[in-house]
Amino acid sequence: QPAVAGPIVEFGDDGYLQIDVKFQGIADFTDFGSGADGTESRSDFDLRRARLVFTGMINDTWGAKFQTCAGTSATRNFGAGGYQLAMSNEKLNSNIRLTDGYLIGLFADSMNMKLGLSKIPLTRANLDACFSPLTHERSSFVYSPYGTDATKNSRDMGLVLSGNFMDDHLKYFAAIMEGREGEVRFYNPFNNMEFITSPEPSNSFEYVGRLHYAILNPEGGPTAMGYKGTYLGKKGTLLTIGGGFAYEADAAYKNTTPAGDMGTPGFLTTKVLNNETVDYTAYTADIFYEQPFDNGGVITATALYLNSDFEDAYKTATSVADQNSIVGGGNGQKDGWYVKAGYVLPFTVGEKGLLQPFVRYEDWNLASYLGVQDQGVQQWGIGINYFVLGDQKVRFTMEYYNTEFDKSTKIGDYLQMTGANTEMYDSYDVVTAMFMVSF
Amino acid sequence: QPAVAGPIVEFGDDGYLQIDVKFQGIADFTDFGSGADGTESRSDFDLRRARLVFTGMINDTWGAKFQTCAGTSATRNFGAGGYQLAMSNEKLNSNIRLTDGYLIGLFADSMNMKLGLSKIPLTRANLDACFSPLTHERSSFVYSPYGTDATKNSRDMGLVLSGNFMDDHLKYFAAIMEGREGEVRFYNPFNNMEFITSPEPSNSFEYVGRLHYAILNPEGGPTAMGYKGTYLGKKGTLLTIGGGFAYEADAAYKNTTPAGDMGTPGFLTTKVLNNETVDYTAYTADIFYEQPFDNGGVITATALYLNSDFEDAYKTATSVADQNSIVGGGNGQKDGWYVKAGYVLPFTVGEKGLLQPFVRYEDWNLASYLGVQDQGVQQWGIGINYFVLGDQKVRFTMEYYNTEFDKSTKIGDYLQMTGANTEMYDSYDVVTAMFMVSF
Amino acid sequence: QPAVAGPIVEFGDDGYLQIDVKFQGIADFTDFGSGADGTESRSDFDLRRARLVFTGMINDTWGAKFQTCAGTSATRNFGAGGYQLAMSNEKLNSNIRLTDGYLIGLFADSMNMKLGLSKIPLTRANLDACFSPLTHERSSFVYSPYGTDATKNSRDMGLVLSGNFMDDHLKYFAAIMEGREGEVRFYNPFNNMEFITSPEPSNSFEYVGRLHYAILNPEGGPTAMGYKGTYLGKKGTLLTIGGGFAYEADAAYKNTTPAGDMGTPGFLTTKVLNNETVDYTAYTADIFYEQPFDNGGVITATALYLNSDFEDAYKTATSVADQNSIVGGGNGQKDGWYVKAGYVLPFTVGEKGLLQPFVRYEDWNLASYLGVQDQGVQQWGIGINYFVLGDQKVRFTMEYYNTEFDKSTKIGDYLQMTGANTEMYDSYDVVTAMFMVSF
Repeated sequence: QPAVAGPIVEFGDDGYLQIDVKFQGIADFTDFGSGADGTESRSDFDLRRARLVFTGMINDTWGAKFQTCAGTSATRNFGAGGYQLAMSNEKLNSNIRLTDGYLIGLFADSMNMKLGLSKIPLTRANLDACFSPLTHERSSFVYSPYGTDATKNSRDMGLVLSGNFMDDHLKYFAAIMEGREGEVRFYNPFNNMEFITSPEPSNSFEYVGRLHYAILNPEGGPTAMGYKGTYLGKKGTLLTIGGGFAYEADAAYKNTTPAGDMGTPGFLTTKVLNNETVDYTAYTADIFYEQPFDNGGVITATALYLNSDFEDAYKTATSVADQNSIVGGGNGQKDGWYVKAGYVLPFTVGEKGLLQPFVRYEDWNLASYLGVQDQGVQQWGIGINYFVLGDQKVRFTMEYYNTEFDKSTKIGDYLQMTGANTEMYDSYDVVTAMFMVSF
Repeated sequence: QPAVAGPIVEFGDDGYLQIDVKFQGIADFTDFGSGADGTESRSDFDLRRARLVFTGMINDTWGAKFQTCAGTSATRNFGAGGYQLAMSNEKLNSNIRLTDGYLIGLFADSMNMKLGLSKIPLTRANLDACFSPLTHERSSFVYSPYGTDATKNSRDMGLVLSGNFMDDHLKYFAAIMEGREGEVRFYNPFNNMEFITSPEPSNSFEYVGRLHYAILNPEGGPTAMGYKGTYLGKKGTLLTIGGGFAYEADAAYKNTTPAGDMGTPGFLTTKVLNNETVDYTAYTADIFYEQPFDNGGVITATALYLNSDFEDAYKTATSVADQNSIVGGGNGQKDGWYVKAGYVLPFTVGEKGLLQPFVRYEDWNLASYLGVQDQGVQQWGIGINYFVLGDQKVRFTMEYYNTEFDKSTKIGDYLQMTGANTEMYDSYDVVTAMFMVSF
Repeated sequence: QPAVAGPIVEFGDDGYLQIDVKFQGIADFTDFGSGADGTESRSDFDLRRARLVFTGMINDTWGAKFQTCAGTSATRNFGAGGYQLAMSNEKLNSNIRLTDGYLIGLFADSMNMKLGLSKIPLTRANLDACFSPLTHERSSFVYSPYGTDATKNSRDMGLVLSGNFMDDHLKYFAAIMEGREGEVRFYNPFNNMEFITSPEPSNSFEYVGRLHYAILNPEGGPTAMGYKGTYLGKKGTLLTIGGGFAYEADAAYKNTTPAGDMGTPGFLTTKVLNNETVDYTAYTADIFYEQPFDNGGVITATALYLNSDFEDAYKTATSVADQNSIVGGGNGQKDGWYVKAGYVLPFTVGEKGLLQPFVRYEDWNLASYLGVQDQGVQQWGIGINYFVLGDQKVRFTMEYYNTEFDKSTKIGDYLQMTGANTEMYDSYDVVTAMFMVSF
């Protein structure tokens, strides 16, 4: 059974079921996003993640995990990476969805299995638990391509193996995932229409591998298949370096166009011009450092680089949905990096409360982003975390961040064509206030 | 821990998680609603509310609540208040959604916090637990404006504080909610199309306040943030008077039209004519009385008045969706009242069973309702509750109710334009049979 | 309390709540389904069923069941029975839905009640637990008509009574269900459009009855309201024969057409030509045999016949959605049968593991199926189950199956009209690998 347990129900001889309840609520304040032309400032309160988690083991080897995710916001949409404008409030917003669901097989320290829907083990950031980020959220640009939903670009269906060697200092992940599948519907809130991508060219799997080496303390045990953005010093001194790759052959058609002219229904769908295809290749490297001091202060610092490639298909796959969700968009072809750092202050607020100021800087080159090709995006943020009980169970976070574009953009108006939002932006500002509760 | 507990799992030193399962199933019989022209009588069985509720506390102060809601019906749709015609049966009907999700902070008897998605503390009726109404359901006209879903018109994202003074006789609620946000999609089942409202004019919060004073016994403890439609006499003699208000500046545009002619796609969307806006203001008053007698009989009686105002914007905001879901509709500008009364009969049916006959009368003036402006609606009902185990855990209810319109209406055909339903109605009749189970 | 229990929380004097977690994950490999023209081979990984089940009793008589179901696949769609082509990957795919939700009343061995959303007690196959099929899945052709979702064609809202007589050898089911309701939206993935059926002609219930007689051991106790596809010999020697019927008067309009020409919006909807209606009548018979041998081997064999009739309305109800989801399609007018057999091998793999090879053959005559009228479908499969722990808790299954059509078809292109998929098929092949975990 887990060392730090939430509510647990035991059953049979060796079985247990743990139930976790988790919320992440957010208030965003931006300098655009309301009004008839979309240029008035806006506030948006939403439940970014509302989760029930059921983790059970039948015996020491076999078990399963069922993790739900619900959200409430009409107007905050991370689908394509980045920030999108205001949209409607309706019933479907608060749907509860399955975000992780897999069979667990704990066969040996060197081989643990997740079979089903689980995280793609490519980037460290994607494997960071989303209820313990260092800043208010993981980077928007560390996900995988293919879908508009976390069940495809953060998770995927497949087989993931993981295990530890060298007294838990060396950990590997190896995965065969479904990868590209079918077509993708891509919603454009500005004209309330769904665009449809080209289909998968042919059957091919996505292969993903990752290694990390913990130079100082080991970061996780054999069954740990994720990371945290900060451990608040509780694991001692950590220095972990990691790297990974992903590959899928024939992942997308190279030459596509909208199937009709703008203004006609065909414009929403995709015409494949010929049989040429492109492969998907990605690689990443990352480093994580955490150092607790005798006075109670804790330094945390981390950096990550990611390169995703579709053989420059964004130049020729001009279908609207392809540009924004397969070969382009926040999850398509790109490269970039971030660095983040935080410091737990060496005193408590109240009996147990901890304060952790943090900063971050990100720099990304995106093949096609929000209607602009060869775009560059820089984002920097500064903020503070308050851990009320001295752990991740109850947390408040405030962050101010600024996003700059190399080329002026309409921010999220993927076609630069809808009349509603005529303003061009070189940058925008957001203040985010967040609470988290997790048990 | 709760005094009357369902299934509870304890964890840590002081933590617990309570899990509740609740169903409310309904069979409606109406004198319209099937057949090619919609004029044949209809029966409709549906799960009005199917709920899993997870309520947990980490310690005496911090906790969280996760309440789901699923329904099954294609053809019973309370979105705009009132009754709508038959629609399709499809996969999305049975989605499980999040209906309440918030961080709990119990700081003092005088200050308890709900932060996240929770009930708007304006009307007593909205704060009544939906699994203990006096009649078969709360009034259709006691909700807040802005959305077509309970996550906006009954609940909202925000901060709600509540607390007791004067030995629990005086309770206050104070809330800052998100209020109006983005646009609203409004579904018209008669032509299978979605209409879109004008956007929020600019960033502004909704402020809500409420006070009640219990003249006799206190109605709820410090952490109780809701009411019941009937306590079956278990709280002794109650006489509670309450009142509340809500306000949001610049809640809606005053002058809008459909963006195109009827029959064109533009007709579904909204054109804002100029920058004039209107404020939203609402106030309410209510009284609740319950008196158990020595012979076992219990009288329950309650009345409520509500006034919601958008500065007569229904006269100029002529966009279809605005008329039906922002400034008009069952949740827009209106005023009216209801009175309800029930009597628990002074004998048991079987060992513990209780019978409670009830009556109700409602009278509402609606600015714009189902395509008719300045409409008046009167509704009266008579029925009986059977509490099988003498409490709210297993309940059967039967109610007959009649709805009359001041002006003839097509009932739910918001445009009076679709050919499917050509009949004009001055009134309609419904018989509703209901079961509830809750533990 | 259940004899074989998963996680259970007790409450009150006699109450308990059992929580089950269940997954069924599938990898399909087909000889069609990807590429620009849909003729390339395809693999598809999905969670066919991801379930949380909450079953609770307040006391010995009253309780409730809440069963959820989530899936992840964009491209495997059983709605109309059979197999459909690839579609998009998007947020709604992973919605968690309510699949069973009802009030339980255990009044006597001869009368147990389910009130709410529960299984239609017509065919044995539909009553088979979906987490213990003999082959990789139940037949695609054993469901009821009217809806495109399991909440209408496998389950329905209503009252189901069941009970045992003659020392549990004789069991009856009697149900009044909602049956046909409103209209049905029918999604055609090939042109990304929704077709709408004709409405229910008038209010009428569906009546369902079923009897079985266990000639040897009784198959289930008084409160058992379902079957298993295989008991792995744990119930001893079984020979059960059963039969059932279903009937709804005026279930559908007899004469309908698309409301407009192909290519116009009206084509998607339905025009009712006159008031003539047809009744729905179905009857079924089935047999189940299981025999454990002294050496540990177990033979399981079962057969089923089903006839569903709409008075040949498929000849005159030519609306597209009517043809495919009410009077025709995989759940409309048809008759056919299947036979399945398996054998648990008389040795264990590892300490407890069991192997069970199986075969099946199905032969169905369908009034209107995937755009072809008077179609015949034959399906045969061969495979093997591996029960890792000797029971249904952890299971792996592999099946190869072949489907043949009497007349060439585009497979799932209901109109034979969309250009995307030009290939005509006489047959197709599928290899399915599956895991199940259930506790």
